[in-house]
Amino acid sequence: MTLVTAEPLPGIPEIRPGDDLAALLAEAAARLPDRGLRGSDVLVIAHKAVAKAEGRLVRLADVTPGARAQALAAEHGKDPRLVELILAESAELLRADAGRLISRTRHGFVCANAGVDQSNAGGAAQAVLLPLDPDASARALRARLRCAVILSDSFGRAWRIGQAEVAIGCAGLMPVEDWRGRPDGDGRLLRATQIAVADEAAAVADLARGKDTGQPAVRLRGLERHVLAGDGPGAAALLRAPEHDLFA
Amino acid sequence: MTLVTAEPLPGIPEIRPGDDLAALLAEAAARLPDRGLRGSDVLVIAHKAVAKAEGRLVRLADVTPGARAQALAAEHGKDPRLVELILAESAELLRADAGRLISRTRHGFVCANAGVDQSNAGGAAQAVLLPLDPDASARALRARLRCAVILSDSFGRAWRIGQAEVAIGCAGLMPVEDWRGRPDGDGRLLRATQIAVADEAAAVADLARGKDTGQPAVRLRGLERHVLAGDGPGAAALLRAPEHDLFA
Repeated sequence: MTLVTAEPLPGIPEIRPGDDLAALLAEAAARLPDRGLRGSDVLVIAHKAVAKAEGRLVRLADVTPGARAQALAAEHGKDPRLVELILAESAELLRADAGRLISRTRHGFVCANAGVDQSNAGGAAQAVLLPLDPDASARALRARLRCAVILSDSFGRAWRIGQAEVAIGCAGLMPVEDWRGRPDGDGRLLRATQIAVADEAAAVADLARGKDTGQPAVRLRGLERHVLAGDGPGAAALLRAPEHDLFA
Repeated sequence: MTLVTAEPLPGIPEIRPGDDLAALLAEAAARLPDRGLRGSDVLVIAHKAVAKAEGRLVRLADVTPGARAQALAAEHGKDPRLVELILAESAELLRADAGRLISRTRHGFVCANAGVDQSNAGGAAQAVLLPLDPDASARALRARLRCAVILSDSFGRAWRIGQAEVAIGCAGLMPVEDWRGRPDGDGRLLRATQIAVADEAAAVADLARGKDTGQPAVRLRGLERHVLAGDGPGAAALLRAPEHDLFA
């Protein structure tokens, strides 16, 4: 019997550039009823806390939009400074329609606004960018916290309403469980089944917190079978190469 | 403090056409350490168990492929009888490439093979189709079990490796949490945030069971704030209309 539990870490303050996030997370975990973090735990952290600690905050007043940003902003009713940040974070703009800009980020994520976000950014005059290398950020936190770590963000999906939380960085967790070639309950070999474990784990954490609760980190238990002795391949393993994507 | 837990129901037998699934689920829930189901619980059921109970099993020997199915099957190295079933379940074939057929089902889901699946189908000579009306199936189970019900399936995603479990039917749960117009932690109004709660709940359940364990149902606790007094809009509310989709 597997029991999976998800519990937010209490009392984490608003994160500021230069904060020692690992120390703040460890202190918060120590306040849980059954204290601390085990090696078999998976800690899911909203990427924004990591990005802020890493100084990935931009004051819009400091941004000078270029011609392309100004044109796109006018066409889609957006702030040209925000569009400038989105373009700078994008490797490729895939779609622009009805005020939505969907791009492939320089990391390879396909998402709205290249992950540039003004919500919970510490004021409307600022925006948070995705961490430069979310897998590296996850590895650094894992080294300090000694548990598996996921950095998560909310992505919209094609064809379905609503955002779901996905893993944009991870360390110490196998992000994809590969059932191909293994037997199903009838003994028939499975052909196409790969499970996006890290994305599903990010989704669990999202359910355990609100968007306004100041709870950026959630401790998951019961996922031991996906936890690795090493860092593993990271969330980069979840990226489908554009040449293999039917909708690129 | 929110604690979310996910626990598979033990000892559910292989489901056959005509089985009283609600009775089997209630009996299995009564075997959990803290027995039974509460009105605030969310029971996530792999759709295949529901489809089998509803008789949505097809013997491939009984299928006669038409000309289009034969041509597609030859082109993509698939069983023409399976392709015939996929076309019959599809409203529209969106992409066919490298052996993958992506269609919009008659319910409106965009997924591989129109949800027609040979794994855990009770033998390679059979295929399971999606329930005819998964929201109606969820409502019927909710009426018997008196808890919120989700029917789930594993869908691949554009741009990301691996499948994630999503809700194809639900009753008694608000499938989308709408934060638009509500304030973030800084008091700034959120503009685009809708959370696909039912999909995230389906993902939680997937992590709590294996693909070969014969555990089609998982009881979730801690999601009270999403549970409704009535059936609610169902998983149909998660479907993005093709005219609003940037990738249709």
